[in-house]
Amino acid sequence: MSPAAPTPAYRRLSVEERRAQLLEAALSLFAHRAPEEVSLDDVAEAAGVSRPLVYRYFPGGKQQLYEAALRSAAEELRHCFDEPRTGPLLPRLARALDRYLAFVDQHDTGFSALLQGGSVVETSRTTAIVDGVRRAAAEHILSHLRVDAPGPRLRMTVRMWITAVEAASLIWLDEDKQPPVGELRDWLVEQFAAALTVTAARDPQTAELVRRLSAADD
Amino acid sequence: MSPAAPTPAYRRLSVEERRAQLLEAALSLFAHRAPEEVSLDDVAEAAGVSRPLVYRYFPGGKQQLYEAALRSAAEELRHCFDEPRTGPLLPRLARALDRYLAFVDQHDTGFSALLQGGSVVETSRTTAIVDGVRRAAAEHILSHLRVDAPGPRLRMTVRMWITAVEAASLIWLDEDKQPPVGELRDWLVEQFAAALTVTAARDPQTAELVRRLSAADD
Repeated sequence: MSPAAPTPAYRRLSVEERRAQLLEAALSLFAHRAPEEVSLDDVAEAAGVSRPLVYRYFPGGKQQLYEAALRSAAEELRHCFDEPRTGPLLPRLARALDRYLAFVDQHDTGFSALLQGGSVVETSRTTAIVDGVRRAAAEHILSHLRVDAPGPRLRMTVRMWITAVEAASLIWLDEDKQPPVGELRDWLVEQFAAALTVTAARDPQTAELVRRLSAADD
Repeated sequence: MSPAAPTPAYRRLSVEERRAQLLEAALSLFAHRAPEEVSLDDVAEAAGVSRPLVYRYFPGGKQQLYEAALRSAAEELRHCFDEPRTGPLLPRLARALDRYLAFVDQHDTGFSALLQGGSVVETSRTTAIVDGVRRAAAEHILSHLRVDAPGPRLRMTVRMWITAVEAASLIWLDEDKQPPVGELRDWLVEQFAAALTVTAARDPQTAELVRRLSAADD
């Protein structure tokens, strides 16, 4: 086939659509394989296009595709935390965790490879994307807690819990997704409440928050 | 000066001593600067030797020096957990944390750079060294808890707490080492006890352990 006569499939998609299609193919490969085990040929094959076409859209090759896929996954992950600011707080947290854990479940291998570090595709840019998600999660939680100007002890408690959730997710994947996801989610919510209670003994702002939480309608 | 006539200082040290001296110089540089900001010239200067001599001992250059320094730091960190198996458990944990936090304090910049990831010197080998320390910490704690065959819930709780301690250490460094280290240590011990209590409600093995802990003489 001459380059002047592309297949109809090549013509049908706009630049944006094609880019999105390649990204989606990359994301689904990176979700279930270590980055080392995904080649540009795999992405081309999954998208049903040629390797040069992948390069035309992603001249930086696998590294660029990986980072674009990671940005797209990070965006999806941020949406896990979208939760209406109504109703009791801990059930809101439980619903956000349900979405987060479903994401972890659907991106298992890629999630582990990304967070375990030391991967060939890890750079200061990928680290910054992951940190951005962590920060967004902390901001979301603090805004749900409706605390003005959260102090260092409360912020540290929230950030530690987020890291602990990440660690629990990795262990959960390692242990063949045991315990069942609902049990893991409830246990993580309970850990959050317990961590706040410990901090409350040392921090008046957190103590006030824990009082509100146990009033049970916040 | 001809290569055939080394200075007396070059002669005085054995190969092992010289290697140790270079490693010590590297470790103290990597402790307080990001790896990007340490050059082989800096190491040579700190050790009072020539750059070619550094290369003779570490032909892999900065990467090899970094990994050797990291191995040596990891060894030091493992010793933080050495604690006699006598007396009440939570004070033992507090003493181990005191040593760990002193290590964090003394290796502040390097510790942050290492654990925040995305550094140019990060490889699967450096990640494996860090993971080895984490695993050793978990094994130490579980052995102090005197639990035969710890189940997945107890292990997950211990590993989550270790990750949370790491996160807290990074935040503590970020926040100019506030709160004071003694307060941080007590708060971390309390978080450990609270996390175990939460798990105890779902896991008979952990419940039995918490009963022992609150009997106050274990």
